[in-house]
Amino acid sequence: MKHFRDEDALVGEIARQFLPSRDQKLRLGIGDDAALWKQRPGFAGILTSDWFLEGSHFLREKHPPESVGWKCLARAASDIAAMGGTPRCFLLNLALPSSATGKWLKSFLRGLRRAAERLHCVLAGGDTTLSNRILISVTVIGEIAEGQEVLRSGARAGDLLFVSGTLGEAEQGLRLIRENGGGARPTNSALRKHLFPEPRVELGRWLAQKKLASAMMDLSDGLSSDLPRICAASGVGALIHLSSLPVLRGIGETTRTQLALHGGDDYELLFTITPRKAASLPAKFRKLRLTQIGEITKERGVRVAGRDGVAKPLRASGWDPFRKAK
Amino acid sequence: MKHFRDEDALVGEIARQFLPSRDQKLRLGIGDDAALWKQRPGFAGILTSDWFLEGSHFLREKHPPESVGWKCLARAASDIAAMGGTPRCFLLNLALPSSATGKWLKSFLRGLRRAAERLHCVLAGGDTTLSNRILISVTVIGEIAEGQEVLRSGARAGDLLFVSGTLGEAEQGLRLIRENGGGARPTNSALRKHLFPEPRVELGRWLAQKKLASAMMDLSDGLSSDLPRICAASGVGALIHLSSLPVLRGIGETTRTQLALHGGDDYELLFTITPRKAASLPAKFRKLRLTQIGEITKERGVRVAGRDGVAKPLRASGWDPFRKAK
Repeated sequence: MKHFRDEDALVGEIARQFLPSRDQKLRLGIGDDAALWKQRPGFAGILTSDWFLEGSHFLREKHPPESVGWKCLARAASDIAAMGGTPRCFLLNLALPSSATGKWLKSFLRGLRRAAERLHCVLAGGDTTLSNRILISVTVIGEIAEGQEVLRSGARAGDLLFVSGTLGEAEQGLRLIRENGGGARPTNSALRKHLFPEPRVELGRWLAQKKLASAMMDLSDGLSSDLPRICAASGVGALIHLSSLPVLRGIGETTRTQLALHGGDDYELLFTITPRKAASLPAKFRKLRLTQIGEITKERGVRVAGRDGVAKPLRASGWDPFRKAK
Repeated sequence: MKHFRDEDALVGEIARQFLPSRDQKLRLGIGDDAALWKQRPGFAGILTSDWFLEGSHFLREKHPPESVGWKCLARAASDIAAMGGTPRCFLLNLALPSSATGKWLKSFLRGLRRAAERLHCVLAGGDTTLSNRILISVTVIGEIAEGQEVLRSGARAGDLLFVSGTLGEAEQGLRLIRENGGGARPTNSALRKHLFPEPRVELGRWLAQKKLASAMMDLSDGLSSDLPRICAASGVGALIHLSSLPVLRGIGETTRTQLALHGGDDYELLFTITPRKAASLPAKFRKLRLTQIGEITKERGVRVAGRDGVAKPLRASGWDPFRKAK
């Protein structure tokens, strides 16, 4: 177990783990009171900040520290992708028990660095302190060409509803981890999706640049929790076709449907698009499947139509810390 | 005790407590995946993020929630002031036990709103979750005219060393609180400084705009911890004159000197300035005293000269969570 002389020594260790910034828009990184960030002309900044807490968002005994490092940045960057933007830099607030300042920290930083390199998102600063459990708060600053941002509020009745990838896979990965734990280099794709999710930055940017999506968000809490947010922001409703959901293969039908409707942590993009534009949407973006799962309705509320064609209201039962606590 | 139906209801409550943004540079506030932020041409963004944790940075039984709300924003904004910039918007990550979602939250938000209004800094977004203790992480985004930023690294041998205000006052306030607790509207100035610190935004901006300060930072951990950071960044040393320190009145000499050297949380500005420019520096900026406490030396290390003129090395013993833990 490694002990740091003081906070400056820990900050120095973190700074050393990250390459000096070659990103000219980040003028000054770690080591001063704050970081300087220059926007490019014609671009707007995008700001988002997320908790990632031991016991709530990850389990220290079950989740490899490399996954914690990767995921704390990936999930915040996913919010930038959800607006069609590109992540540029991030601030890391990290509170650790002294028992985690050695091997755990080293693996955590390795995972974080991998995500930062994958996303071309540089560490700009943050804050460190001691705590009896591991607390992480990550702020990501992204950018988008002015006027290209895709909001939650742009869905209109008649728009078609799409998702990227497979739904429920990360939740299935979580179930496997609860049973068996997960390694730092998982081979199972559900495990990998839960531990090392890939924010859909390229897809989001493409949908925004081509002005294809009318509304967009990322699926973090599960379709049944997140879709009502697009509907509320846009003043519309939605109808999902159960048979269209891109579910997992190799598990029972009831389970895979429940996972697809309510499973969290997928970080896929949920977006709406007019029928005219949808006609030119490819079935895949690079290797990522794009699936129409329903449509936007004038009638409020989210309903789901089964194979019998009968539509029933969909009750939100994805991840919500406040709902869980009651 | 108030319970929230779900996370969206809590976010809605927080959003209602804050006026709709009239700041045109903030294009989109709470309620989407992320916030949009447009920099003004000729300005750079400043990014900073700080922890404010129950048990480490405040005590729930001792610190009124209104102070917690004020201070979590004020201390992060102080980092922006320390570079000469102006705070513009902030992201609030808040984790609460359900026992704190009622009266405590209401008072907390009142204090936060007061600070946000005082600093003209608007709430742009954030994240909420449940936690067994109160966890706060605040990110402030500020701005500064390009090239005006004052870094820690600009101090040169021969520069004079200044501080604003009185040193050790906040630490004295903390002592009073540990003994007696503190109210939401304290009359004692040490209590007020500990509970409701005023970041020196106007002073920092003035020193930057007039190109007076060669290096600057804010005093958060105490002079003996913070001054070595300016020295390390600038590759210089410093000599402090004990008799020049702007100490508290009405307490014993040893105590007030110790408080001035090591007391944390003052959020005063520490800055260096060439002798030529110092000649035109007023004794006060608005009503805030500016005091020369020493000078920058070519010889490395921080020393302190007593009334006998003998200089001794100054050992850092201000606030450091990692040092305290050993």
